Amino acid sequence: MQPCQLTATEAATLIRQRKLSAEELARSCLARIDARDPTVRAWLYVDHDMVIRNARELDKLAPVGVEPKTPLHGMPWGAKDIIDTRDMPTTHNSPIYTDVRTNRDAACIAVIRALGGLILGKTDTVEFASGGRKALSRNPYNPAHTPGGSSSGSGAAVGDFHVPFAFGTQTGGSHIRPAAFNGIYAIKPTWGVVSREGVRMSSMTLDTVGWYARCVDDLIMVADAFRLPKPAAPFATGPKGLRVGLCRSPVWSAIEPAGEASLLLAAKRLADAGAIVEEYELPAPFTSLHEAHADIVQTEGGWSFLPEYLTSHAILAPDLRGKVENVRGVTPEKLLASYALADSCRLVFDALFGSGLDVILTPSAPGEAPEGLHTTGSAIFQSMWTLLHVPCVAIPVGRGPLNLPVGIQIVGPRMSDIRLLEIAKALAPVIDTDPQAGMRDLF
Amino acid sequence: MQPCQLTATEAATLIRQRKLSAEELARSCLARIDARDPTVRAWLYVDHDMVIRNARELDKLAPVGVEPKTPLHGMPWGAKDIIDTRDMPTTHNSPIYTDVRTNRDAACIAVIRALGGLILGKTDTVEFASGGRKALSRNPYNPAHTPGGSSSGSGAAVGDFHVPFAFGTQTGGSHIRPAAFNGIYAIKPTWGVVSREGVRMSSMTLDTVGWYARCVDDLIMVADAFRLPKPAAPFATGPKGLRVGLCRSPVWSAIEPAGEASLLLAAKRLADAGAIVEEYELPAPFTSLHEAHADIVQTEGGWSFLPEYLTSHAILAPDLRGKVENVRGVTPEKLLASYALADSCRLVFDALFGSGLDVILTPSAPGEAPEGLHTTGSAIFQSMWTLLHVPCVAIPVGRGPLNLPVGIQIVGPRMSDIRLLEIAKALAPVIDTDPQAGMRDLF
Repeated sequence: MQPCQLTATEAATLIRQRKLSAEELARSCLARIDARDPTVRAWLYVDHDMVIRNARELDKLAPVGVEPKTPLHGMPWGAKDIIDTRDMPTTHNSPIYTDVRTNRDAACIAVIRALGGLILGKTDTVEFASGGRKALSRNPYNPAHTPGGSSSGSGAAVGDFHVPFAFGTQTGGSHIRPAAFNGIYAIKPTWGVVSREGVRMSSMTLDTVGWYARCVDDLIMVADAFRLPKPAAPFATGPKGLRVGLCRSPVWSAIEPAGEASLLLAAKRLADAGAIVEEYELPAPFTSLHEAHADIVQTEGGWSFLPEYLTSHAILAPDLRGKVENVRGVTPEKLLASYALADSCRLVFDALFGSGLDVILTPSAPGEAPEGLHTTGSAIFQSMWTLLHVPCVAIPVGRGPLNLPVGIQIVGPRMSDIRLLEIAKALAPVIDTDPQAGMRDLF
Repeated sequence: MQPCQLTATEAATLIRQRKLSAEELARSCLARIDARDPTVRAWLYVDHDMVIRNARELDKLAPVGVEPKTPLHGMPWGAKDIIDTRDMPTTHNSPIYTDVRTNRDAACIAVIRALGGLILGKTDTVEFASGGRKALSRNPYNPAHTPGGSSSGSGAAVGDFHVPFAFGTQTGGSHIRPAAFNGIYAIKPTWGVVSREGVRMSSMTLDTVGWYARCVDDLIMVADAFRLPKPAAPFATGPKGLRVGLCRSPVWSAIEPAGEASLLLAAKRLADAGAIVEEYELPAPFTSLHEAHADIVQTEGGWSFLPEYLTSHAILAPDLRGKVENVRGVTPEKLLASYALADSCRLVFDALFGSGLDVILTPSAPGEAPEGLHTTGSAIFQSMWTLLHVPCVAIPVGRGPLNLPVGIQIVGPRMSDIRLLEIAKALAPVIDTDPQAGMRDLF
């Protein structure tokens, strides 16, 4: 087995035991990128020499006899190219920002680097994570299909074993959907708890930084680094007796057979393992969240892209110009009503938990990854949760009829991130019954 | 009269009439800075040569026969040094970011530059606009006193006629208070409508970009540039019949005699001019907004300063370290309750307007600027409005017993920014009866 095939948890153990160095791990990841990226095209920028130099520096920080300070020491990362890095360009996949270097790390990058993480490079993205140009990235399981987006390259890079970790962001469904399409794990934390400083903004109310990994333990390793909130209530230790709300969600009509099958399969596996799985219908007002989300994305996007509209009008994508021009025609009153709906639904949703419900189980995408790179799939099964500001964890379920990955997501109330991850850890072995599938298929 | 003494509206007229060039205006501002800044210390960075080069470029864009595209053409600006500028350092007044250049303009800078604005330099600020080091800036009217903060240099620079415009930001009271202390006008717009991209974040829910000027027309010139929201309801054309709610606010016990006198004087002047001024008490839940604000500043500040806490622990200010360590002990439940209180108060506040109320009149600070540079004054009369996300316009009232400026602010519902500015335009001549006072005293 090559080091790039290890989960971060496995690699961290080997590094601590001195059976693996940061440099060896980095070289394995770079070799994987060299071999696969001409097909997968996950990356916009990788400076091999700089990566090796930085990996050697990390190895020097933990010579024989000195234990690495954190399990993240030496762990390779990809960063979506809307995230600033002090030593690489940040292009937003936009012709407006070709080769701009900000000389400053985004907050999330600074945290990971402070704890010993190694940023391998920048991953391709939908332009500004918002519209315009698509990424050139392809689905590792079938390059004729999208890896999802807008965090296209980050999802594909982790799915294809280029790196154990990558940062993505979600405004609609940009983070959880690529997890589903690439057969990997992801967390979109509670809104705000991971600073967005240095991450291109498209919507104040929605943009959220998350990360990808290939197991729940790896997600938790990073959650600890960011000190995600830990509620006082006791954690789940297994699926037995766990009260799971099977939520088809108000947009169920958009489901595809593969999405429905994976949701029901996950529910059955949980029930078989002793969880109490019950259908859960959200109250009527939640039906309008999808509309409210669209109003907010449009209006706040208009505020965000005004600079490019004025400075670079001709090369700003038409759909982003449309936000500034408010082609949706969202009035101030409508915007405020959308905010108010989201506020009230957040309170209702949080209050569901505790008495009769531990976790929501819901689709992470309509189905398998669509064919073609002209689309990244639909955000319809993610946008509501983004607007609710709640933590979501994506878990793979297996394969659909096209032999592409399918998954589900579990959702908890705001500020319960660590608890949700502990639940994910308890449920993942039941839901994701063939975690080695990627290694069989992609190597 | 020197060009630096002009309002932007006056200067724009002269530039359009070719009686003044951008270079002449810039040279006048630079001369004022040279003469006064050794005392006032508003600026952290001014590159005279670059300013003149850029001013000349602007003049070349509008040669004889070509009218400037916007009234902002050639207008000099200061930018608080937490705001990124592509050609100057952004230090946040922090030893952690000495001389970092991000090579990219913040959104607000990009918009102003796209419309012909001339960024003169970076103004001093409380460290990260949040805590730690104070600015070295002094009150132009008495250098033994603070100009307020955290937008200390921006307030002082506009108040002392260094520039007609400057950007500030407000998380608690950082923007409106310096307006009061320096005898100038300011708008803190509705939360979100002016993009914070490229502005150092300390609180997701609170940080707001605003600007200073020396008259309402100048504030409106910039509001048009940012396309601030314009409600359908008709605008005020004068004080007569305008329904003004005199709001002492739930923190009235913090008022000082000078603050009380200026509020009542403004109310009397408005009533004498025909406005219907009535005492207005906010509903009981508003009493807790001050606490909620503190909870949010603490928790979100902890999220924002985690990178510096990890990378630069020893030189991160103790009060910012305290946010990361959550010394206030805000639980997740308490934070969510604070969010919910703010959400519900926003709806209640917006609904006050229309039927019986046109605008709120309320203190902009406890009184005159305190003596000493160890404090920037109290944010107690601003933080509630910041949390409510409502637009606020600061208007000078005159002088207090120490001969330092005093002022008030008017407040409207969210998304009524242009209407509030039109009301300010109608009320300012009544409230601010001696608008030439600054020129008499400071020249």
